Amino acid sequence: MKLAYLGPENSFSYQAANAVQTDEELIAFPSIPLCMDALKRKLVDYAIIPIENSLEGSVHASVDRLYEQNDYQVQAEIILPIHQQLIGYDGKNIQKILSHPQALAQCQKFLETNYPNVQLEAVQSTTAAIEAVVKHPKLKIAAIGSKQAARAYQVPIIAENIQDNAYNQTRFWILGKKDFTPTQLTFLEKRLTLYVTLPSNLPGALHKVLAAFAWRDINLSKIESRPQKTKLGEYFFIIDLEYTQDAKRYQYAIEELQVLGCQVQQIGIYPIYQLD
Amino acid sequence: MKLAYLGPENSFSYQAANAVQTDEELIAFPSIPLCMDALKRKLVDYAIIPIENSLEGSVHASVDRLYEQNDYQVQAEIILPIHQQLIGYDGKNIQKILSHPQALAQCQKFLETNYPNVQLEAVQSTTAAIEAVVKHPKLKIAAIGSKQAARAYQVPIIAENIQDNAYNQTRFWILGKKDFTPTQLTFLEKRLTLYVTLPSNLPGALHKVLAAFAWRDINLSKIESRPQKTKLGEYFFIIDLEYTQDAKRYQYAIEELQVLGCQVQQIGIYPIYQLD
Repeated sequence: MKLAYLGPENSFSYQAANAVQTDEELIAFPSIPLCMDALKRKLVDYAIIPIENSLEGSVHASVDRLYEQNDYQVQAEIILPIHQQLIGYDGKNIQKILSHPQALAQCQKFLETNYPNVQLEAVQSTTAAIEAVVKHPKLKIAAIGSKQAARAYQVPIIAENIQDNAYNQTRFWILGKKDFTPTQLTFLEKRLTLYVTLPSNLPGALHKVLAAFAWRDINLSKIESRPQKTKLGEYFFIIDLEYTQDAKRYQYAIEELQVLGCQVQQIGIYPIYQLD
Repeated sequence: MKLAYLGPENSFSYQAANAVQTDEELIAFPSIPLCMDALKRKLVDYAIIPIENSLEGSVHASVDRLYEQNDYQVQAEIILPIHQQLIGYDGKNIQKILSHPQALAQCQKFLETNYPNVQLEAVQSTTAAIEAVVKHPKLKIAAIGSKQAARAYQVPIIAENIQDNAYNQTRFWILGKKDFTPTQLTFLEKRLTLYVTLPSNLPGALHKVLAAFAWRDINLSKIESRPQKTKLGEYFFIIDLEYTQDAKRYQYAIEELQVLGCQVQQIGIYPIYQLD
């Protein structure tokens, strides 16, 4: 079985992919859309993509690409704790700090406090940032990335666990056409994710949508609006529901939304696993 | 009166700031947080910051910084149409394209179709990207930015209006302590924005919050969840309401939410203006 992930090796996506199962062949792709394209074109059986970080929120490149496609569904969610390190050869004279935009954002307060005048540069991945440090050991640059990556490239850690909040986690989704059961991970709970587009001519439409779940005792764990990319003010809603009731209740709730005039896209019913 | 904006000159923020009123002194700051800090430290009277783009969604650096502060409120909203251009000296042999991350994201499909193997680099602003092109005319790099900036720097436009959707607009908020009335702009409507944190022990809490508005015939124009940056699954909600009813109705609705156990932060009651 082949599993696409957001490369290069030693990225957080690689850590999540690697932890899931050992007998998968892991294939790196340079962007999230290319991971998803590989799945669509049947080059791989599954793709693992980052969905949400507890500090930065949703990964738009991921959630937006799932809108209006029916090729595959979410088969599992993996929650990975994220610890960011400041990595480089010389901690005293740093002139530029490189990392993935999400990693820079996760360490925003640390950087503002400790390196207010240092130039920040967004690059493709945390690994690409560390590679730049390795390639130019005489330049006064540092990278933000994982402990594993620092170890793999044998570059010293200047400052440990620099993310703004100790409780930093990322949700990853495993996409595919068939069930996916990771081994040796802690099962947390089951979830149903829907993308819902409201009818434009129904006042209080979102309130009515939530009512369809509330009176059935179906709990929302998250709701988020994303632009439909048509014009300002037109959104679709990403709705995460705890999957604890009888399957028919969810089916009836979805049918009720459709009768209201909503477009409902089922993104997946999937188990959630926690990595340590 | 002094107005802070996200510099440098010729940025989209500059365009919006410039269109608002001609007798303001415009002062550039290098980041959104620094614009807001300038306002807090009374270096300026107002700050104009980008809030949401119709393709990319909310600007997290802006909306997250408004959470849990009471120094100032939204005094006006300006809607600016955004047209992105591919700018450079040589359109045939481009090896790298630079721009602000939001601009790169807005042109994602154009870049994937026309420049699938070209390296993309995120820089601080669209203007910084064009400056890099000007500074290194012999390097095979191009920038994404506005027509105005291309004209100001006298760099040719390689491809016009390359944003993925013709209907690309950005909302800007003018923050301050006093009313702000721009001249010569088209008034659209009035809005109230609230940040609401739900009590953790109330099942169907969001449904109850929306009920408080729905039965009062108060229409939502937007709802969005943002992470509280504590742990996964804890959010606050940004709620935009059409401000068409009697002021008391909103006041009673807010009091009802507080009785439910919600924390409610009033971000502003403000007029919305459209730029052509």
